[in-house]
Amino acid sequence: MATIATAAARCSSPTRSQLLTRRRLPFSVSFSSAAPPAAVAGFGWDDALRVAGDGGRGDESDLSGYFRKVDSCNRGMDKKGDFVKFVVEDQVVGYIHKGFAEHLRDFHDVFTIISGNNGSNTVENVSLQSSLRTPEDRTHAIGEVIKSLVEMIPGIRNELYPVTSSYGMPVYFSLERAAAPYFGIKAYGVHMNGYVEKDGQKFLWIGKRSDVKQTYPGMLDHLVAGGLPYGISCKENIIKECEEEAGIPRSMSTNATSVGAISYMDIEGFRYKRDVLFCYDLKLPADFLPNNEDGEVDSFRLIPVPHAANIVRRTDFFKPNCNLVIIDFLFRHGYIQPDSHGYLDLLQSLRSGDCS
Amino acid sequence: MATIATAAARCSSPTRSQLLTRRRLPFSVSFSSAAPPAAVAGFGWDDALRVAGDGGRGDESDLSGYFRKVDSCNRGMDKKGDFVKFVVEDQVVGYIHKGFAEHLRDFHDVFTIISGNNGSNTVENVSLQSSLRTPEDRTHAIGEVIKSLVEMIPGIRNELYPVTSSYGMPVYFSLERAAAPYFGIKAYGVHMNGYVEKDGQKFLWIGKRSDVKQTYPGMLDHLVAGGLPYGISCKENIIKECEEEAGIPRSMSTNATSVGAISYMDIEGFRYKRDVLFCYDLKLPADFLPNNEDGEVDSFRLIPVPHAANIVRRTDFFKPNCNLVIIDFLFRHGYIQPDSHGYLDLLQSLRSGDCS
Repeated sequence: MATIATAAARCSSPTRSQLLTRRRLPFSVSFSSAAPPAAVAGFGWDDALRVAGDGGRGDESDLSGYFRKVDSCNRGMDKKGDFVKFVVEDQVVGYIHKGFAEHLRDFHDVFTIISGNNGSNTVENVSLQSSLRTPEDRTHAIGEVIKSLVEMIPGIRNELYPVTSSYGMPVYFSLERAAAPYFGIKAYGVHMNGYVEKDGQKFLWIGKRSDVKQTYPGMLDHLVAGGLPYGISCKENIIKECEEEAGIPRSMSTNATSVGAISYMDIEGFRYKRDVLFCYDLKLPADFLPNNEDGEVDSFRLIPVPHAANIVRRTDFFKPNCNLVIIDFLFRHGYIQPDSHGYLDLLQSLRSGDCS
Repeated sequence: MATIATAAARCSSPTRSQLLTRRRLPFSVSFSSAAPPAAVAGFGWDDALRVAGDGGRGDESDLSGYFRKVDSCNRGMDKKGDFVKFVVEDQVVGYIHKGFAEHLRDFHDVFTIISGNNGSNTVENVSLQSSLRTPEDRTHAIGEVIKSLVEMIPGIRNELYPVTSSYGMPVYFSLERAAAPYFGIKAYGVHMNGYVEKDGQKFLWIGKRSDVKQTYPGMLDHLVAGGLPYGISCKENIIKECEEEAGIPRSMSTNATSVGAISYMDIEGFRYKRDVLFCYDLKLPADFLPNNEDGEVDSFRLIPVPHAANIVRRTDFFKPNCNLVIIDFLFRHGYIQPDSHGYLDLLQSLRSGDCS
């Protein structure tokens, strides 16, 4: 198990060039934001709470730990050139790695692979066969392809995501959630910070994911979060997830407040994640106790917001994209302040992805 | 005086292309975001409150009125090519209109005008004479130039703004506030939404600017807002402005919470405004009554947030940049919701300027 001494980052105040290059320190516990870790995260609540409560470092205005968290969700930007556009009805709906596109060549009835004219046979873009005219036809045909490629695309969830050019626009077809990054489809989600206010101090409810969860087992998480499947509004999805993930009744969850959105884009191998997360806050009664109903959360803790901030910037204990939503919370609730060096850069970096 | 019937915009639900082109409706009362209006705004509180309280239009999820307000702070983007870089110590600190640069040619001791090599004598960029080495020397020399150009640069305020490449970076010199847009200098400000919560409903304190104020006389405004002069932190500035503009004592104003930032860039004639506004919220006691102490505000009203939203999207009554800060408030407090068409576009448009 990683001890706090090795897992926590101890950072001195950054120079401007450090902020701009956002170098990562050599963490001994490091989880990818794209590929699930092979093993359960090696820390417990005691470890997390010890880092959280160490208030004596005087580094509250040092934003470098937050910058590293943004970086860890936005990797591989130098690899963009390895991807080609995935075009449906003249709209770019995704980006496909040239190597992955080679695997799609066999499916003539589904994909049209446009190659360059210079004889090099380099893929220039990918589109769908014109015979696939309806969303239903496309969904079915691509679903069959994904079944054939199951060895390349692990972790099939049997959960369909809508494929559009941007949020609220026409849905061209639906795609298995686990396959979305292989087609560079934008995926939307809802993340909620559940908090409590006592005597003017704010506290965040933090979950620890089940050790048997398929993705990011054992890591820290929001009180409530989930992908946005086809055919459900953000608000209805938050209410559903509140019930399933934290046992929050509808009478409370209808008060969940939309507060904005964050986005990131992350390239790893053939996978190009383009995620947009709609952020919500829910102020809960001080005596409310969350209760996970779907077995995906091991346990919850209520911790002071500055302590949660310490975990975000000093460790890799949170599921990577949760860090960004908590940083957004820290901005909106005044825990990150304008006179901290790098304030505006960090604020903007929370929407590094195509936020549309 | 403009009546509500002519001043308020009545908009049908927008199509996607309308959202993208963000056309402006032909308002009969229209104020520039760059040049102060020549006359006092022609409306009173009665007019504003009548538009505000008209809740029967069923257009709450129509964001087109908000898009128009963003547009009115981001004009002239097709004119960017008329400006050249203003470079100090190898950093771009601003943008100067080629026509305005011609007026700077006479001041050989202060400015270096680099012209093209093709014999056309076209200005390529503007920098400072290398003999001006210290911030003090530069501030003094440019101050003298501005005095000479007083007929071109109206509204001198004798208030100095710091000139940097981005917030928190070294200050190369200081510049008269009214001259900032002529040099395309980024200007920073603090804007605060003061609100009250009663029985779960939120209300915004709105000010009406004095009819004798030099800029935007008679228009609606935030409870507290101000430019960020040289040598004062955001937090100290908010506390100072709270006292002067609304009589809010330090014991209350220290609770003002930083919540993010908005930015815009607006070109009109020789002027290139590049403003970044740090946004604050302050939750006030229900029985607090603001009291203007510097004569800049005529009167205040406390109105329900949805009513303030109606004024923003249906009229041009607010000082233009206040609209953006109120729209940001509406996002963060859940009054603008993800399932409204154009949500993500509008959210991003609040930082259309260089937010650094």
